[in-house]
Amino acid sequence: MTVLTLGVRDLDRSRDFYVNGLGWEPVMDVPGEVVFIQVAGGLVLALWGVDELAAEAGDIGHHGVPDGKAPPIALAQNVGSPEQVAEVIDQAVAAGATLITAARPTDWGGTNGYFADPDGYRWEIAHNAGLRIDEDGTVHMG
Amino acid sequence: MTVLTLGVRDLDRSRDFYVNGLGWEPVMDVPGEVVFIQVAGGLVLALWGVDELAAEAGDIGHHGVPDGKAPPIALAQNVGSPEQVAEVIDQAVAAGATLITAARPTDWGGTNGYFADPDGYRWEIAHNAGLRIDEDGTVHMG
Repeated sequence: MTVLTLGVRDLDRSRDFYVNGLGWEPVMDVPGEVVFIQVAGGLVLALWGVDELAAEAGDIGHHGVPDGKAPPIALAQNVGSPEQVAEVIDQAVAAGATLITAARPTDWGGTNGYFADPDGYRWEIAHNAGLRIDEDGTVHMG
Repeated sequence: MTVLTLGVRDLDRSRDFYVNGLGWEPVMDVPGEVVFIQVAGGLVLALWGVDELAAEAGDIGHHGVPDGKAPPIALAQNVGSPEQVAEVIDQAVAAGATLITAARPTDWGGTNGYFADPDGYRWEIAHNAGLRIDEDGTVHMG
């Protein structure tokens, strides 16, 4: 796992809480768009508008959690090539996951796709040539 | 961040998906209770019953996400001492977090407390003498 995305209602408010309030330093901060903060070795927390997240990761429909809504989060795993994106999604679907979006080119120049686990939790499988993780777990983006 | 907990509706089904289907190896597996799987350096994914999670991390009330429900997840940060649990929670509340439960002894022999971030996401701050993270990010529990 590489990225945990929280869908937030007010990005400026969330940045203010995590960056200014808690003192966590962003790895990447794109005002009005998204904030990435490293929270463990090789793991970043992404703060992203909940509507944008829903548009990307899909609504949950009948696969949903008890209240019928998708939790406004997504978990992500980065893999080494565009081909691996499709392979990991195929493996998950074979294991009982629900396909949300098959592997496809993204507007940020990479490849991604989504599946939902048995409770509807969205997993993004992505290849991003701009993401690099050092031996010690330090994440570089952009 | 040390633990990401997903509240699941059927623990056996979720174990089957992640452990047997995806081939991820548990760090700790307590049948009928909880499954922990390391997913990044120093980070474990916990699969736990959604009702137990709600009982521990609290319902969200008016601080909630758009549909008025707490997402059935919790993010956790482990700290070095029981005193630090209270300190981190105090810092978060000073930054605008909502206090859910103040630092308290737990039935697993540690100390924890919960706050909610501006969107209602639950953060557990915990001291657990049984949790150890190696230099390389490998997590040991128990």
